[in-house]
Amino acid sequence: MGQAEVRVTAAILVIGDEILSGRTKDKNIGYIADHLTAIGIDLREVRVVADIEEEIIEAVNALRKRYSYVFTTGGIGPTHDDITADSIAKAFGVGIDHHPEVKQLLLESFQKRGIEPTDARMRMARIPHGADVVPNRMSVAPGFKLENVIVMAGIPNVMHVMLDAVTPSLKTGRKRLAVEIELLRGEGEIAELLGETQAEYPDVSMGSYPFNREARVFGTVLVLRSTEPERLAAAEARLKERLTAKSIPF
Amino acid sequence: MGQAEVRVTAAILVIGDEILSGRTKDKNIGYIADHLTAIGIDLREVRVVADIEEEIIEAVNALRKRYSYVFTTGGIGPTHDDITADSIAKAFGVGIDHHPEVKQLLLESFQKRGIEPTDARMRMARIPHGADVVPNRMSVAPGFKLENVIVMAGIPNVMHVMLDAVTPSLKTGRKRLAVEIELLRGEGEIAELLGETQAEYPDVSMGSYPFNREARVFGTVLVLRSTEPERLAAAEARLKERLTAKSIPF
Repeated sequence: MGQAEVRVTAAILVIGDEILSGRTKDKNIGYIADHLTAIGIDLREVRVVADIEEEIIEAVNALRKRYSYVFTTGGIGPTHDDITADSIAKAFGVGIDHHPEVKQLLLESFQKRGIEPTDARMRMARIPHGADVVPNRMSVAPGFKLENVIVMAGIPNVMHVMLDAVTPSLKTGRKRLAVEIELLRGEGEIAELLGETQAEYPDVSMGSYPFNREARVFGTVLVLRSTEPERLAAAEARLKERLTAKSIPF
Repeated sequence: MGQAEVRVTAAILVIGDEILSGRTKDKNIGYIADHLTAIGIDLREVRVVADIEEEIIEAVNALRKRYSYVFTTGGIGPTHDDITADSIAKAFGVGIDHHPEVKQLLLESFQKRGIEPTDARMRMARIPHGADVVPNRMSVAPGFKLENVIVMAGIPNVMHVMLDAVTPSLKTGRKRLAVEIELLRGEGEIAELLGETQAEYPDVSMGSYPFNREARVFGTVLVLRSTEPERLAAAEARLKERLTAKSIPF
């Protein structure tokens, strides 16, 4: 089976009343999920909580103990409902203050743009003690990384540049490889043979996802995943053998 | 303040490896969030977990104690990775069996469509003891409601009909009303006056959501919410007074 497998896991914590009310439709979960899968980090859980300090603290503390990394989105702007940085500081039991370099960056950016460095705007320089700054080449006000918790903006394009900025510093595991087999058959038709193949290859994860593209085009996509290319290929071959035996084209 | 307020709360539990891998982009959270807001149920938390029994059980048990309702999506099909019904039964410590009426419905539907009632297909008739069936007029195999946990399909159009079917049986609270004010200004410009208004009206929740529509059109939407129309109107008037005083058009 080659070298010992290093498994790196993660959770996402989305912070925002607007997602829970339905007003804003989250686009960050899917984006971060794709990114983590691509770099070899296993996303294992997602939570969405309201802009309520105790709930953020409870979720961060539950998730950071359980997974290699926690990625948060939302709640780092200048308004009164942006309480993520303070909540993270409390979750870790550390202080929080205006970070000198970030303060400087914000002041320069505000001056350049001719806008006043109000207290509210300068709140965006508050970073918990011990955190590393995650730069934001989109709109200056940064995210941060405190131990294994990465705090990012909720606005998708700002989150994207923060995720790119933090990625080189992350430890990553072996990538899970995937094979997809699309069938124009319902799940019921392949459930048994898929279950049998899964039982033979317990180390290759096998999922089955029905689709329904138009009124009369429906089918199932089988997805096999493993970090071991040989096992994946063997499981794929076995599954296709069974599909062929049942005259199911793939 | 009128009658005592009945607050009805909810959580969503999305069950599915395919969401965590990024392969499938969730569309159910936003849909259910909109629906619950519309009928007067407060969505307070969302979790996404993998197709792993212990993780489903832990999440269901944490959420069902905390909120009036838990809505789950995913994992109720015929394949080996569809373990939601069994996991829910275990979470409640009840048995699970083929439900006689559901079995009948499925057998009739399979016969009509000329397909074989295999063991895998008949798994979809397994419903935990004590649960009520949530009918599925889209594709027959139903969801169910066990105490305060509503178990629905993951395929969006199937989930929609299940959500519609269960809605008349839900208790609902007073609807939260919302006012939106769109400004072509950044959050930094309104942070202070919004915070002051929030302090004056602690019972009206006030959020601020920056937007960035095209390269050069950016701004902020302020959202005020309350179940009390008079308080909402008063808070809105006060906020607009402050915007006017700062010459910010709305």
